[in-house]
Amino acid sequence: MTEPSRPGEFELIARYFAPIAGPGGLGLLDDAGLLRPGRGYEVVVTADALVAGVHFFPDDSPDAIGWKALAVNLSDLAAKGAKPEGFVLTLALPRGWTEGWLADFAGGLARMAEAAGCPLIGGDTVSTSGPLTLSITAFGTVPAGRMVKRSGAKPGDVVLVSGSIGDGALGLKVHGPDKPDWVATLGAEDRAFLADRYLHPQPRHALADALQRHASAAMDISDGLVGDLAKLLKASSAGAEIDLDAIPLSGPARAALMAAPALAELAWTGGDDYEILCTASEREYPALVAAAEGSMLLLTPIGRITAEAGVVTYRGKGGAHSFAQGSFSHF
Amino acid sequence: MTEPSRPGEFELIARYFAPIAGPGGLGLLDDAGLLRPGRGYEVVVTADALVAGVHFFPDDSPDAIGWKALAVNLSDLAAKGAKPEGFVLTLALPRGWTEGWLADFAGGLARMAEAAGCPLIGGDTVSTSGPLTLSITAFGTVPAGRMVKRSGAKPGDVVLVSGSIGDGALGLKVHGPDKPDWVATLGAEDRAFLADRYLHPQPRHALADALQRHASAAMDISDGLVGDLAKLLKASSAGAEIDLDAIPLSGPARAALMAAPALAELAWTGGDDYEILCTASEREYPALVAAAEGSMLLLTPIGRITAEAGVVTYRGKGGAHSFAQGSFSHF
Repeated sequence: MTEPSRPGEFELIARYFAPIAGPGGLGLLDDAGLLRPGRGYEVVVTADALVAGVHFFPDDSPDAIGWKALAVNLSDLAAKGAKPEGFVLTLALPRGWTEGWLADFAGGLARMAEAAGCPLIGGDTVSTSGPLTLSITAFGTVPAGRMVKRSGAKPGDVVLVSGSIGDGALGLKVHGPDKPDWVATLGAEDRAFLADRYLHPQPRHALADALQRHASAAMDISDGLVGDLAKLLKASSAGAEIDLDAIPLSGPARAALMAAPALAELAWTGGDDYEILCTASEREYPALVAAAEGSMLLLTPIGRITAEAGVVTYRGKGGAHSFAQGSFSHF
Repeated sequence: MTEPSRPGEFELIARYFAPIAGPGGLGLLDDAGLLRPGRGYEVVVTADALVAGVHFFPDDSPDAIGWKALAVNLSDLAAKGAKPEGFVLTLALPRGWTEGWLADFAGGLARMAEAAGCPLIGGDTVSTSGPLTLSITAFGTVPAGRMVKRSGAKPGDVVLVSGSIGDGALGLKVHGPDKPDWVATLGAEDRAFLADRYLHPQPRHALADALQRHASAAMDISDGLVGDLAKLLKASSAGAEIDLDAIPLSGPARAALMAAPALAELAWTGGDDYEILCTASEREYPALVAAAEGSMLLLTPIGRITAEAGVVTYRGKGGAHSFAQGSFSHF
């Protein structure tokens, strides 16, 4: 078997990555890229690594892999109240990669970069004997001192989430190879919606400015609402009372829960939401919700911050509820 | 066989990585880190990925892997004239990683970070079914508009290199599993010197300020002097005349070339130098060399930039010399 004819590193950069580059990328021809934060601004930096077979299925559409790799980083920037400014990509390509795969991957990456106004400014491409591995470091800017931390929640603050919760975790079941019985009970449109929410998360960068102005704490929900709330509370040395019935669900997620009520647990604890979890004082809360609505994004109050560090009370129709395992573990 | 008892992601961060973190890392407890460039400064960004079995031997000392992973990025920052300010690390750990390995890796990383004043400000740790893979993105600052590019070399400029050339490529032979015959002819100290130059490259960040003030173009030499010079010339649309006999060699490298004269080719074209290749106008050249000497670093002139784009003439004792393959290819 002969190796397919493939472009070298420089052709590859020129053909697929240079079109995603902004002026700070210097045509991807130098050893480094440049960020030029405006006067009085700071740079927020976030990084996520993704490994084939761990974070996505190796045969997922390369377009979706490219989209999502950048989206999960932009989701972190949004939660910090930062405006996206650029990113770098390091890509370890497995033996047998094809140019077609790479073209589609770069296409998905380019669409997300374009949608967010976040150009590529540098990176590195290497080979690996293992699975495809990629790492993105993304940069955003905030006015100095205005990055929204996890640690700022205060007793009495309202707890809110953006969009709808659970679609990503349900979408993974719909999309994955071993489909549970409930999947067949959903209509084709609901299945497509949930799978797409898993494959193409929408980073909430439209919320960044509102969060920076009005939120007391925020993080993005990537490892499940219940587990990520525990992290925010730990950083803030606070507790919370959460109304499970207030947690917003999409129509397709509600349809799945009708078919299999036990899925509620998955919706609340499963990963891949890429929504924003935030808190705001009683005073700032109306302005935060109004600013979000101005960006056509829904922020839903789901509870209150309490003073007792680490204690979270979940209540719903069935009374109090406790969670055995809060969050996806990375090991 | 039972899995060794190992810390979870959060214990791991607290135990091994939080001690390397600077104030911008926010204790590595948030989703993002912060960079605060001073007024009138820009941020230079560079990234390198390293894969076990490709960029280092899987059984290399984890201390050396940690040191070198950061060093190769700091070398890029130095070449751009940037002062190191921080870095993020994404780490994909293979099955069977041990806490001892990680402790030593973090130790080497910490020593390099400390030596360069370049703290960790964020990252991500994931698992992989493949080889250990790590990616570092490093940040430095330069006064606005002063990043030293590859593209600024002008006809008549002096071409210079820092330190000594070829030690890394020779050191790889000394260190690697298949040792050529000439290795046995070297003394133990020479062998140790060359292997250490491969394992613990010294990024030339002490040169950053001098380069930013006086160099017309610069890059670090990671893929071999001959190949990297070709890249600098391509970016500058220029040519060069190089005196092979002027290329500085260390004592141990000269000893190796005495034993096997054909090694000169390896010294000039092999990778892993992590020295600086730069150019300066006739006017700026003395100030550049003097500033480097003030930092106890030697910059050696090896030739001149010429006007004919892409044409490089190499001359030495044996007359004109041409190179078949200029540079290490990443694929």
